[in-house]
Amino acid sequence: MPLNKLIQDGDNQDLTNERFKSTFDTDALAAVFHSGEDSLKRIREVRDEITKRGHLFDSLPAAHRTRAEKMEDVSRKLKNLMENVNEFADFTNNLDMLTIIRDVMGVEGFPLALHNLMFVPTIQNQADDEQTEWWLMDAIQGKIIGTYAQTELGHGTNLSAIETTATYDKSTEEFIIHTPTTTATKWWPGGLGTSCTHVILVANLIIDNKNYGLHPFFVPIRDRNSYSQMSGVRVGDIGTKMGVNCVDNGFLAFDNYRIPRRNMLMKHSKVSKEGVYTAPSHPKVGYTTMLYMRSEMIMHQSYYLAMAMVIAIRYSAVRRQGEIKPGTQEVQILDYQTQQYRLFPGLARCFAFVTAANTVRQMTESCIQELSHGKSDVLADLHALSCGLKAVVTHQSSTSIDQARQGCGGHGYSDASYLPTLYTCSVGACTYEGENMVMLLQLSKYLMKAAAKAEEGAVMAPLVAYLASSEPVVIGDKFEKLLSHFEHIARHRVMQAYRQMIEEEKQGIERDYAFANHSVDWTKAARAHTKLFIARGFVKKVQEVSHQEVHAVLTTLAELYLSYELIEMSSDLTANGYLSESQVQEIRHQIYDCMRKIRPNAVSIVDSFDFCDRELRSVLGRRDGHVYENLYKWAQMSPLNRKNLPHVEKYLKPMTSKL
Amino acid sequence: MPLNKLIQDGDNQDLTNERFKSTFDTDALAAVFHSGEDSLKRIREVRDEITKRGHLFDSLPAAHRTRAEKMEDVSRKLKNLMENVNEFADFTNNLDMLTIIRDVMGVEGFPLALHNLMFVPTIQNQADDEQTEWWLMDAIQGKIIGTYAQTELGHGTNLSAIETTATYDKSTEEFIIHTPTTTATKWWPGGLGTSCTHVILVANLIIDNKNYGLHPFFVPIRDRNSYSQMSGVRVGDIGTKMGVNCVDNGFLAFDNYRIPRRNMLMKHSKVSKEGVYTAPSHPKVGYTTMLYMRSEMIMHQSYYLAMAMVIAIRYSAVRRQGEIKPGTQEVQILDYQTQQYRLFPGLARCFAFVTAANTVRQMTESCIQELSHGKSDVLADLHALSCGLKAVVTHQSSTSIDQARQGCGGHGYSDASYLPTLYTCSVGACTYEGENMVMLLQLSKYLMKAAAKAEEGAVMAPLVAYLASSEPVVIGDKFEKLLSHFEHIARHRVMQAYRQMIEEEKQGIERDYAFANHSVDWTKAARAHTKLFIARGFVKKVQEVSHQEVHAVLTTLAELYLSYELIEMSSDLTANGYLSESQVQEIRHQIYDCMRKIRPNAVSIVDSFDFCDRELRSVLGRRDGHVYENLYKWAQMSPLNRKNLPHVEKYLKPMTSKL
Ligand SMILES: Cc1cc2nc3c(=O)[nH]c(=O)nc-3n(C[C@H](O)[C@H](O)[C@H](O)COP(=O)(O)OP(=O)(O)OC[C@H]3O[C@@H](n4cnc5c(N)ncnc54)[C@H](O)[C@@H]3O)c2cc1C
Ligand SMILES: Cc1cc2nc3c(=O)[nH]c(=O)nc-3n(C[C@H](O)[C@H](O)[C@H](O)COP(=O)(O)OP(=O)(O)OC[C@H]3O[C@@H](n4cnc5c(N)ncnc54)[C@H](O)[C@@H]3O)c2cc1C
Repeated sequence: MPLNKLIQDGDNQDLTNERFKSTFDTDALAAVFHSGEDSLKRIREVRDEITKRGHLFDSLPAAHRTRAEKMEDVSRKLKNLMENVNEFADFTNNLDMLTIIRDVMGVEGFPLALHNLMFVPTIQNQADDEQTEWWLMDAIQGKIIGTYAQTELGHGTNLSAIETTATYDKSTEEFIIHTPTTTATKWWPGGLGTSCTHVILVANLIIDNKNYGLHPFFVPIRDRNSYSQMSGVRVGDIGTKMGVNCVDNGFLAFDNYRIPRRNMLMKHSKVSKEGVYTAPSHPKVGYTTMLYMRSEMIMHQSYYLAMAMVIAIRYSAVRRQGEIKPGTQEVQILDYQTQQYRLFPGLARCFAFVTAANTVRQMTESCIQELSHGKSDVLADLHALSCGLKAVVTHQSSTSIDQARQGCGGHGYSDASYLPTLYTCSVGACTYEGENMVMLLQLSKYLMKAAAKAEEGAVMAPLVAYLASSEPVVIGDKFEKLLSHFEHIARHRVMQAYRQMIEEEKQGIERDYAFANHSVDWTKAARAHTKLFIARGFVKKVQEVSHQEVHAVLTTLAELYLSYELIEMSSDLTANGYLSESQVQEIRHQIYDCMRKIRPNAVSIVDSFDFCDRELRSVLGRRDGHVYENLYKWAQMSPLNRKNLPHVEKYLKPMTSKL
Repeated sequence: MPLNKLIQDGDNQDLTNERFKSTFDTDALAAVFHSGEDSLKRIREVRDEITKRGHLFDSLPAAHRTRAEKMEDVSRKLKNLMENVNEFADFTNNLDMLTIIRDVMGVEGFPLALHNLMFVPTIQNQADDEQTEWWLMDAIQGKIIGTYAQTELGHGTNLSAIETTATYDKSTEEFIIHTPTTTATKWWPGGLGTSCTHVILVANLIIDNKNYGLHPFFVPIRDRNSYSQMSGVRVGDIGTKMGVNCVDNGFLAFDNYRIPRRNMLMKHSKVSKEGVYTAPSHPKVGYTTMLYMRSEMIMHQSYYLAMAMVIAIRYSAVRRQGEIKPGTQEVQILDYQTQQYRLFPGLARCFAFVTAANTVRQMTESCIQELSHGKSDVLADLHALSCGLKAVVTHQSSTSIDQARQGCGGHGYSDASYLPTLYTCSVGACTYEGENMVMLLQLSKYLMKAAAKAEEGAVMAPLVAYLASSEPVVIGDKFEKLLSHFEHIARHRVMQAYRQMIEEEKQGIERDYAFANHSVDWTKAARAHTKLFIARGFVKKVQEVSHQEVHAVLTTLAELYLSYELIEMSSDLTANGYLSESQVQEIRHQIYDCMRKIRPNAVSIVDSFDFCDRELRSVLGRRDGHVYENLYKWAQMSPLNRKNLPHVEKYLKPMTSKL
């Protein structure tokens, strides 16, 4: 029995040859990637159940459809899913849900994406018991469909400037919801465009002319029977976007629209009949949904990247183009060093990011637990960490996805590869749930405080303790040495940004402005700090793996990851003679050495991501490697291959016609 | 009269305030950007004529249309254009044509894009006089529509493996065109999908079982009256792509399809009735179209980048988000250093790239001239240069465009910004007309030869002479100093890649493999060499500008460009103690200083790109800055705002309905 479990008769011979080279059991690596044997097993069970249900499959590749047709197909699958999911899975279980969404929905989203990810969880976390009783079951069953409406035309990042108001009217015991200006129009919430019957509205709570700040309200916007908008409500779709076009992001405005008092979510803050406001016991309770979302996003992005890697690496084993020595046979493009350099660092990042995602998910879960007991010690640390990870992981994964796409040449540009969709959807995550540059600046502010403590010799949180340590003499193994370089870079960048800022303060510039004047350097420090966290986690993970062959593969991937990221920051290594040029050269050559070692296992590594063809939706990434004949088949479905196209009939024919 | 010529009453006040700050005459900078006062004047004339012709305008933003509808609208404009263009412009004049295409067509392409860019020029360059007589006029008038069909399903980069055959049949004096395998299917040519009546087909010329290599053939594929495909021809559309979806890239296969002998383009090579082959006088004559295309692409990319910069910088002056010091007024996001760092290096690149484009265009024109007189001395140098420029400019411009897009936050992700379209279309250029990595490797091979000469002390071509010079002691001005750093980096990278390779050769590894083993380092060397060329050209250009205020602005932009690109490669600066850490810090701080200087002029600089709103197609980039109300208007046009959407009626309503 070969170690690679995907070999089948009749496959493309180049792919089969690659698979026979595997030095490890693909199932064993798959278990590591998918966070353990149990979850791998569960993923496969769910997938097998989906395989039995043709009504959950795409009826045509989405690329050949208009947006409205795509929405129709995805809603069809969604409805079938809602009706049947209980037969084979538990949709409230995260693993089940993500597996199903990846497989059935794809990455372009669906009208209920925000419903599942934000609307239901917000009810769970912020509605009081009675409200939960009223709303939760209907929401879970899709009898009401909702979204989270926070961003406005004029404000996304700066929440404190949100304009929508909810003014309490004691006389009727109602809130009057109002959109005072054009810029106050809610803009962007997913599902709002056409699908939602309700929203969780984020608005300024106003009682007796006093503004108590932003609070969540449960607001019906469309009639559940007719889908016509409520009177006093203006709602609609905001049009197409770079990606996620199966989500109907929308706009929403109110004209003195009234809702009952008890439609304010009252688990934490309350307003009594008489208009008396009760503040939450802890001001940060609202953070939990955000933390949860960010930790999930990091996981999603890792999976998007992994999908791109499967597609590009399989195709690179199938595609033969050019010769290394003229006159010899055409080589698989995976044999070119430049191609490996395009793909393998991304491959290593998959494991690094999945590991980070798992860690931060666990930390988030325990933090939410603690918060519910009133403890919030780790909240600030975790919040800062999740900002940095969100920014670094979304940026690096989308960059690696586009490199994978470009690495497929012309065919990578075709939607048949699914790589354009993976890119345009994944890069959106650099913007939503906290714009990346803003995220890095938030982490920077945290690092600034940490740096101050380091200078003072105060006690430090574990994640930043390294800022206070002096340059260690590393006598450990290769990993320890490389990690010490990460630490050096992060420490150097953070402390230098801090000291520059302090210098300016001494010259009379206020702290806020001094920070702003060095914000680019701060973001660079924040990135280095985050990469240190990811690198440490990856090494730790590798060291925990006991399966010998899998351990060997992961060791090489981790070495590649560490050396590649270090070389990306290598000016920090040579600066001030920290390392000599030849030491840096050594790290650079380690990249190439690792690539050489990974090359024969590359296809088997991506096979271990264990995605099926239905999930990948890519002609280039097919398990069987039969790329060309299927590109041909895929193309035949293009709507432009129909007869009597208007542009030809009306405009081109009259030009060329001889009559 | 204010120096900025775009100020109008009723504009967004923040934008107007920016414009009043201008330290230079925007018309004067516009003349520099658009290669002189004459061409600026001509561009404006053409634009004014278009403004008079409503039938050349988009009838709805493309984002709200299906692909077939977009094709219809663009073909409508095209037909109107073909009928009326002679009234106001000369379509065979490059400047006129590009101005018109940018304004009327937009960046998503049109069915005749390849017709204009490749089909007509190939007839002009490769058909003999009689053939020109037969075909050229019809082609120019659009009575026949053609494309350039070279790439096949199996081969794009490696042309020598192209499989399509054109076998001469003496008995009938015909060529038999045939597609022997699936992978031999022509794939990708623009316009082939639905629009072309003819193609220039690149196929192996076979006479008496001997293969004479690739030659161009003039091949009818669809009937000009009915548009039905000729018998023996299979042709169609390959489906949607990441971008340029108004181009119908297509596939094409032949089943022993016959064309007359004289349908081979015979200006250079010939086949007589008897089947006697005459080779071209110079083997490289075919290169001219390619050189021309690449030089035009560099220009196009510079303009795409410039458009993105107008959009992002105007929006960044309109958008207010957050406070630098809590409790003070919200600031224009353009005031954030991180935002400037996202945008201004791209702004500087616009000028650097346009300058490079102009230079290479002139070099190409004179090279084509020389070639027509049988001289080909500079061909190899120019070819290598254009490979490097193609790769660096397409990569950096698309990267800067995506940074500009991300810099617009959520609204940058909306198609209303036009930034997604600019990105997805411009990034395609990293792949077509020579995949970028392959381009860098071609330049590398040239640099390898140059390095060998440098080692031998042989005479060097001017563009590579610096490889042989020793580290100069620079006593010149700031620019000379910075340029000497570029030279240092390029020389260091090239010579190090070369020496590594020679080392391996000494150990018995063949040259081709030794090159391949260091190809990543070679591509890095090729990039540095290309950046040196761009940097030198930019500095030279700035020094030629006599207008004082414009000179001052360009000087700052050039300083920013040079210091930013150097910092991107700064590990090469600190390596081996070439510069001290504090010297590098100085260069880094120069970036921030330049950004501060550019800030008050930023809007006026992009105003000087002199694009009108119709060209920009962007709600965020509007001259008047009225962004929010127009986002609202734009959104209303989304087709998802129609009644009775299938996904709602069929699937969502039944879920939520209470009955
Ligand atoms: C696909 C998608 C889906 C979305 N879904 C939802 C949803 O379901 N519900 C919802 O409520 N919202 C949603 N949003 C909105 C999203 O949350 C915001 O767009 C996002 O938070 C960014 O905010 P912004 O658009 O205001 O960006 P801006 O803040 O305007 O960013 C523009 C630029 O300004 C810079 N900037 C802003 N503030 C600062 C600062 N203080 N310091 C330095 N630089 C700064 C940024 O770095 C950026 O370069 C969605 C957005 C997208 C793209
Ligand atoms: C939008 C678009 C429009 C197009 N229009 C036309 C047209 O009108 N007419 C036409 O004939 N063609 C057209 N093409 C095809 C285009 O010219 C090719 O796709 C392009 O030249 C790249 O070739 P490829 O697809 O074979 O890439 P590949 O060569 O398959 O590239 C895949 C990967 O292999 C690597 N690689 C390949 N060879 C080497 C090597 N020797 N050394 C190292 N690495 C290597 C590349 O770097 C890349 O990472 C178009 C393509 C696109 C995307």
